[in-house]
Formats: sequence, C-alpha cells, structure tokens
Amino acid sequence: MMVKKVEQIAMLFDFYGRLLTDKQQEMLALYYEQDLSLGEIAGEYNISRQAVRDTVKRAEKILEEYEEKLGLVKKFDLERDKLARILNMLEEQKDDPELIYKIRKTVNEIVEIQND
Amino acid sequence: MMVKKVEQIAMLFDFYGRLLTDKQQEMLALYYEQDLSLGEIAGEYNISRQAVRDTVKRAEKILEEYEEKLGLVKKFDLERDKLARILNMLEEQKDDPELIYKIRKTVNEIVEIQND
Repeated sequence: MMVKKVEQIAMLFDFYGRLLTDKQQEMLALYYEQDLSLGEIAGEYNISRQAVRDTVKRAEKILEEYEEKLGLVKKFDLERDKLARILNMLEEQKDDPELIYKIRKTVNEIVEIQND
Repeated sequence: MMVKKVEQIAMLFDFYGRLLTDKQQEMLALYYEQDLSLGEIAGEYNISRQAVRDTVKRAEKILEEYEEKLGLVKKFDLERDKLARILNMLEEQKDDPELIYKIRKTVNEIVEIQND
C-alpha cells in the first residue's frame, strides 16, 4: 500500500472515526494504527480475511464521504499552513520577546485544539 | 423560542447541515434561516404541522448527536477566542506596522477558513 494513502486514511480516521461503528473503528485501528495484516485481524475476530477486507473498505468509503461533505482534513491543512506562516513572521520580529512568546504560545494552543 | 437555542441550532446547522438529507436541510433552512412558522412550512409541503415539527425535531437531534461526537462548534468557539486574543496582543504591539498588518491578515484568513 502506498504511504500516502495510509496517511490520508489515518487523517480521515482521526477526524471522522467517531462517526463509525465500534466494530469499524476497532478494525481500522488494528489495520492502520497497529499495522496488523488482514489475515491477523481475521484471526482475532474468527472471521474470513475477505470479511475483514470488506469492513475496512466500507469504513474507508464512509470516511471519504464525510470528507467530501465536511472537508475537515482540507480545512485543517489550510489552517496549519497559515498558522505556520504566522510563526514564521514572528520569527522575523525580534523587538518584543515577551509578546512573541505569548503569541507563539497562543498559536500552539490553536494547533492543540485542532489535534484534539 | 429562546434566542440562545436558535443561535445554537444555527451553528450546528452550519457545521453539520451537509450531513442531513435534502428534505431535512430544506425544512431547517425555512424554519431557522427564513424564519417561517411550522404552519407556513406545512402549507408549502402540503403536509401536517405535526409532520414538519417531527422532521425539524429529528434533524435537530441528529445535529446534536454529531456535535457530541465531533465537537466542531465547541472547537470553533475555542479557536475563535484564541485568534481574538492574538489580534488583541498585536494591537498592543506597535513597532512594526507592516508585520502587524500581515499577521492580522493571516489571522483573518484562518477565521474565513473556519466560516467556509
């Protein structure tokens, strides 16, 4: 599997995972976060490899549909770029170290809210 | 109806409206954005006032369930507070007007992404 696809699914799972069923969440976590193979997951659940594959594919499709409708991952990327740009601008500004410290702190808090 | 409840539903509708069915979206828009009464909407659709009421209540419940799971409105409020704090800090900082201009511009772009 391509790394880029894995990363994209991991982001979608991060943003929309809570909208999946418990079983879908479990299987995606095992497959994408714990890096288990389809066969290993099938063994855990005592079901066929094909059944695991179907559940994973179905869950991925649901995540992609949520992204099509809400676009949270896309917005998050845009926001992160702009926050990084703010931090860069502040690097160039050396007049008031205390102010810069406070602004950096606040920007980092925003990033934390997004990652929550 | 209390203003606060209307505002809360309007925010939820803004964030999660695209996850509702077309019919639910239409009725919520008529009720909350166009400010039509349940009776007026019933007239438009040629259905009972009670049927409109049920659809609106059901849609509100779905929106609230999405917020319970994803908390986007809550995150948005937190982010907006912190961005406002950044803007206030920059007001106090007068040394480099051009930098301040660029930072304000970037912060406002973030707010636009959130409102998209």
